[in-house]
Amino acid sequence: MSIPILHVEGFLIVELQGELKDADIAAVQQSLLEQLHRERARGVLIDLSGLEVVDSYTGRVIRDTAGMVRLMGARTAVVGLRPAVAITLVEMGLELPGVHMDLNLERGLEWLRAPER
Amino acid sequence: MSIPILHVEGFLIVELQGELKDADIAAVQQSLLEQLHRERARGVLIDLSGLEVVDSYTGRVIRDTAGMVRLMGARTAVVGLRPAVAITLVEMGLELPGVHMDLNLERGLEWLRAPER
Repeated sequence: MSIPILHVEGFLIVELQGELKDADIAAVQQSLLEQLHRERARGVLIDLSGLEVVDSYTGRVIRDTAGMVRLMGARTAVVGLRPAVAITLVEMGLELPGVHMDLNLERGLEWLRAPER
Repeated sequence: MSIPILHVEGFLIVELQGELKDADIAAVQQSLLEQLHRERARGVLIDLSGLEVVDSYTGRVIRDTAGMVRLMGARTAVVGLRPAVAITLVEMGLELPGVHMDLNLERGLEWLRAPER
């Protein structure tokens, strides 16, 4: 399964949805980082609003991806977590410290566009 | 027992008071997160000024709720701790790191309204 990554105004946007296998998640991470490098994007937005469940593997990959994007000099916003997903992540101790979380795509893009503080 | 959650200017306000059972606290957490998601609120204010006692369960739920709210892209302010409650929490080692504490409702709302730093 190939998950599309959109390039909009210098930002890469990926929307995770449905039931993803570990290999899909790993492939998204790889493509995101390569596209970030190739297209010199300024930031990455990961939209999780289409996910009913986020397991610990996905949680860790998201956290690690944000760290990698930061090392490459760009920023990551993660948006659209459902209540049940937020509960599970905190219960698993995966609170994604250092990752900017936002309510939805619009708010996440707004944050990415704003000058860094 | 149902604890009301007010929606004021994009913020959810909940005042805990009286003697709460564990189930009441858990229900408040659940309702807060669902309402946050449904009404796209920007922040949550939890007022503890009506509590004479905060036990370790309540302390942990408040800490976890703040973490979940952050994952959903909003902010939490906890206000109105009485001296005795602050003493108990610190003695139990529940210092709520990462949770914004404020003196009272007005100050908490002021902080929530301010642009994120």
